[in-house]
Amino acid sequence: MPRLIVHRVAMAHPGDVSAIAALFDAGTLAPGMLRAVIGKTEGNGGLNDFTRGYFIQSLMHLLAARTGEAPAALAARIPCMLSGGTEGVLSPHAVLLAEAPGDAPGPGLAVATAFGPRLSPGATGTEAQIAAVEATVRRAMAASGIADPGLVFVKTPAGSLAGMARARAAAALGAARALGDVPADRATDQALLRDLTLSSGRVAISAGIEVPCDEVILLGQAPGWAPGLVLGVRPMRDVLDLDAVQGLVASLGGPGRLRAVFAKGEPDATGRIRGQRHTVLGDTDLDAQRHLRAALGAVVAAVAGDGRVFVSGGAEHQGPPGGGLVAAIAEDMA
Amino acid sequence: MPRLIVHRVAMAHPGDVSAIAALFDAGTLAPGMLRAVIGKTEGNGGLNDFTRGYFIQSLMHLLAARTGEAPAALAARIPCMLSGGTEGVLSPHAVLLAEAPGDAPGPGLAVATAFGPRLSPGATGTEAQIAAVEATVRRAMAASGIADPGLVFVKTPAGSLAGMARARAAAALGAARALGDVPADRATDQALLRDLTLSSGRVAISAGIEVPCDEVILLGQAPGWAPGLVLGVRPMRDVLDLDAVQGLVASLGGPGRLRAVFAKGEPDATGRIRGQRHTVLGDTDLDAQRHLRAALGAVVAAVAGDGRVFVSGGAEHQGPPGGGLVAAIAEDMA
Amino acid sequence: MPRLIVHRVAMAHPGDVSAIAALFDAGTLAPGMLRAVIGKTEGNGGLNDFTRGYFIQSLMHLLAARTGEAPAALAARIPCMLSGGTEGVLSPHAVLLAEAPGDAPGPGLAVATAFGPRLSPGATGTEAQIAAVEATVRRAMAASGIADPGLVFVKTPAGSLAGMARARAAAALGAARALGDVPADRATDQALLRDLTLSSGRVAISAGIEVPCDEVILLGQAPGWAPGLVLGVRPMRDVLDLDAVQGLVASLGGPGRLRAVFAKGEPDATGRIRGQRHTVLGDTDLDAQRHLRAALGAVVAAVAGDGRVFVSGGAEHQGPPGGGLVAAIAEDMA
Amino acid sequence: MPRLIVHRVAMAHPGDVSAIAALFDAGTLAPGMLRAVIGKTEGNGGLNDFTRGYFIQSLMHLLAARTGEAPAALAARIPCMLSGGTEGVLSPHAVLLAEAPGDAPGPGLAVATAFGPRLSPGATGTEAQIAAVEATVRRAMAASGIADPGLVFVKTPAGSLAGMARARAAAALGAARALGDVPADRATDQALLRDLTLSSGRVAISAGIEVPCDEVILLGQAPGWAPGLVLGVRPMRDVLDLDAVQGLVASLGGPGRLRAVFAKGEPDATGRIRGQRHTVLGDTDLDAQRHLRAALGAVVAAVAGDGRVFVSGGAEHQGPPGGGLVAAIAEDMA
Repeated sequence: MPRLIVHRVAMAHPGDVSAIAALFDAGTLAPGMLRAVIGKTEGNGGLNDFTRGYFIQSLMHLLAARTGEAPAALAARIPCMLSGGTEGVLSPHAVLLAEAPGDAPGPGLAVATAFGPRLSPGATGTEAQIAAVEATVRRAMAASGIADPGLVFVKTPAGSLAGMARARAAAALGAARALGDVPADRATDQALLRDLTLSSGRVAISAGIEVPCDEVILLGQAPGWAPGLVLGVRPMRDVLDLDAVQGLVASLGGPGRLRAVFAKGEPDATGRIRGQRHTVLGDTDLDAQRHLRAALGAVVAAVAGDGRVFVSGGAEHQGPPGGGLVAAIAEDMA
Repeated sequence: MPRLIVHRVAMAHPGDVSAIAALFDAGTLAPGMLRAVIGKTEGNGGLNDFTRGYFIQSLMHLLAARTGEAPAALAARIPCMLSGGTEGVLSPHAVLLAEAPGDAPGPGLAVATAFGPRLSPGATGTEAQIAAVEATVRRAMAASGIADPGLVFVKTPAGSLAGMARARAAAALGAARALGDVPADRATDQALLRDLTLSSGRVAISAGIEVPCDEVILLGQAPGWAPGLVLGVRPMRDVLDLDAVQGLVASLGGPGRLRAVFAKGEPDATGRIRGQRHTVLGDTDLDAQRHLRAALGAVVAAVAGDGRVFVSGGAEHQGPPGGGLVAAIAEDMA
Repeated sequence: MPRLIVHRVAMAHPGDVSAIAALFDAGTLAPGMLRAVIGKTEGNGGLNDFTRGYFIQSLMHLLAARTGEAPAALAARIPCMLSGGTEGVLSPHAVLLAEAPGDAPGPGLAVATAFGPRLSPGATGTEAQIAAVEATVRRAMAASGIADPGLVFVKTPAGSLAGMARARAAAALGAARALGDVPADRATDQALLRDLTLSSGRVAISAGIEVPCDEVILLGQAPGWAPGLVLGVRPMRDVLDLDAVQGLVASLGGPGRLRAVFAKGEPDATGRIRGQRHTVLGDTDLDAQRHLRAALGAVVAAVAGDGRVFVSGGAEHQGPPGGGLVAAIAEDMA
Repeated sequence: MPRLIVHRVAMAHPGDVSAIAALFDAGTLAPGMLRAVIGKTEGNGGLNDFTRGYFIQSLMHLLAARTGEAPAALAARIPCMLSGGTEGVLSPHAVLLAEAPGDAPGPGLAVATAFGPRLSPGATGTEAQIAAVEATVRRAMAASGIADPGLVFVKTPAGSLAGMARARAAAALGAARALGDVPADRATDQALLRDLTLSSGRVAISAGIEVPCDEVILLGQAPGWAPGLVLGVRPMRDVLDLDAVQGLVASLGGPGRLRAVFAKGEPDATGRIRGQRHTVLGDTDLDAQRHLRAALGAVVAAVAGDGRVFVSGGAEHQGPPGGGLVAAIAEDMA
């Protein structure tokens, strides 16, 4: 009977995996148990942010040394959702999701992963990408027994720089279709970045031009998994939605029980938040997503009392426009 | 009997004073009543932030056209505490503090202002600057009857770029001495940036190389002023100190009563917040104060439900190290 | 008989017009002679660069004080082509183009200006904008006698942020049509940003969302003007086209004769310069135009031996793709 | 008889060593021949530039796979002088310096390397650091037979962020003492960053907080090496010193013969270049070294006709104040 274990480890820099090596050395975590990684590195989060690749390379070399598998093989079976940008109070860290042998009857919180087929560059932002993500998420659900995922992370290929937002949108609609959160007949390529009423409050998408195929991580209850951890997810209506964050953390038993915290958001495209003008979209010197992460990260971290929050921008079709979601894994109060 | 009136006005850009002109046109505010301005402009908040000067020039030309006084004379009697940088959710705005005729007996919240003598460049960061600020604050207190100010804003000359932090520190100690918040025998130039246990939780300092003399704005209860507005001030122990902000706003009757909100903070110089590493101090592309304002501004704005928060970095001797203060003017619940 | 006089003045900051005031005070330049201003201010050159507006406001207040005309009236008859961004070795400065009484028979270098009709926001990047610029340039040519302009500066309205490049392209084609540098039947809105073989090597365009109508400055030989100054213009095939710059300066008699220097260029959209990858287009922290101005400005300034070079990015249909132009006003060797 | 071979290879990103692998695969370069690497990666060049470490990690893993040596052992014997920041026209690339078997009698251009002893953090910027660099350079000279080096690269430990400039200064004086370019009795810790008349026009220093000991690369004529390549080095009096760059390239036979190009410079600390104010030192959004590299790189690349120029800032005691040096390896015209 599997059991989800979650470790949140710090990095001194994007090439530093010594805290993970220490977990291996101490026997706290066996290298072979690692299923997925979600983390923040201290880059700028943009096209020229190489901190994500540096961390992944460092991690795969560490795992290779400990398991004997080749780095490329490891990278092809362990999804790494790295988001660059630790603006403001955010702290670089990685959340390790591992599958250990458990000894208690479930159901409990489970992790599942899947990789999709290679997507051709021309398919970015088309029905093909939507369908590919939908199929990969469905496959992960079926294989894992996570019938109703609480949170779905997807990393999806962006054919080009200009296509990042559209790729995220396509992946969001694909995942939302798999989850049944949007009507399949409306959530088509015609709706991409247009019909923003179509959204799911439990998908978190990132896109990258270096990614050849979709990578999916599911979190949710599954029958065969041991209890002990719970997942909470709430939509945020805007970056200032403190009620959502405080409500989530209270529902999980308070900051002391949090084991990992995630948030997704985006700069309000109207140029206003609650009626007041913001200046995020027209700042030539400071990218809008850096503004967003600094602000959203601070709101969530202030509630969590901890800067180790996974905050990622680009929330097209992921929660309400101008908003997003907040989620956390916590120790079960039961 | 005077009465404090507070208007918070938006700007479409740093040269836009049309909202202020509209107040004049509507008779809501008479140009001659304006005593002080505290505001945020959308620059980078650093040495090459010219949005502050642009706004002040625009405002003084507007006032000159309405009052017949020369722009330079107006600038010499109306302190303008402009802080650049509206990162994240912050919204460019100005808080107008004006003195209107009142009709109710006090005491009530009052505003007072004073300008100090011209400070020689060599005096920056010395006992001379500390003493000059102390004397100017004392003079404003004595002249206004604000015996125990709730909040003291000081804009002070920085001889040079390198001297900004030291100038702020000197002004903070000077104001703190005037307020009796630090022992005068210890709060000397020997303590500047060294003995950070010496601090006042009710002073907010900015420094500028373009400022020839200290400018002081006091807010506090004074006997002759009409009631109706109240001031609340709380220290923040760090940028994540949500309890301080929520406590303040609750004590004032909730977000709906807020008329102006102010916060002061600084990046934690230890490189950590609550034990977790932050990356603010070593970011070559994004100035530490921009990180700080984005994060602190979001925490305060999330509680206030409004991005019009005056957030300013550089809090040497102003609240605890790595922390700062939050303050608000609100409508009296009485 | 008019005579063109050119002054290049420094600014200590974007609100500093003291060097211009000094010219007036000394009698070197009469305020009423000023016809146009071309300059660089030390902002970021992007949407949130307010240094241009700050300088113009400061200049118009100065002129108003000296001439008795209202600032708005002055701004409506004196074109100010301000470009933000003095990266690298560039130095903030303004080139004052003035018309003085002359005493020698021409022809000589002349300046002419014109303002177009108010352009509706919807017209940006359409045939209407192309035609408006064409008509305004033709009008300036006809009125001034500059039959064959050497250099045409146009500031044109951009309906929105997204429309900046398209607005510049439309203005470039309009000016090119007026000059006869492109076939009118091909240089239509269908060619905008598509047929980059259509270009003029003697137009320099900037676009701004704050501009209500086209502003045009022509430089060229006109019959009634006194000799003494000459204009040279050369296309640059790319940012590294040192030969063009050195050829131009040599043809004008060397750096010692230069009175004003202008350059226009753009980041190569192919991502390569002479076969080598550049990283300008994907830099999340540093805007591509800031990269461009730093590099192009340094190449031109190195030849001129002087950082007071007007360098502006965004060269759609202005010289070859990835290239631009370099120009200078010099004292006539004759 | 050894022969220096020089390859200049591009990288698609900082983790891309495929061009080097291709040289190995083609037999053009044997992995065991590599002696040193000098290169530019596309980071910001500052404290939080991790592109250097990412490239080095990638390279050492490649070499390890090809040679069987451990990555750490390789890194301890092959100096890698990586400079982050490819602003403007600069192109990410690496210059590989390798020692191949030669078949012609010398003397010829040689490369030599040396690593110094581990430096304690407290030694940064002291006489100990100066002496350590001096000794390491002397050792490299003695062991290699390069009696009069043309160019000396040193990477030296910086105890902390604040100590970077001082560490560079100490290493520069140390190397200059070894070369006899400064009087040993004056080039002591008392002169650091003070007596800027003490400088060498043939040393290029970088400092890093991650570096435990000095790493030295010498280039110069040595008796046992085959001819075929030559080295040229010139001081630059300021960033605009086009004559120096053109003089150097002409002396080497023109751009077509260049195999590698290097430049070192710094923002003029007086705030002026040839009398005109620059804005590099007070730009809150754009680091002074990024300004510098963009400008200096463009001047050098314009002459070389190629953006693959190693440009590095921070030139304390390396050439005249505000200036630096330019150097190139070229094919011998003989």
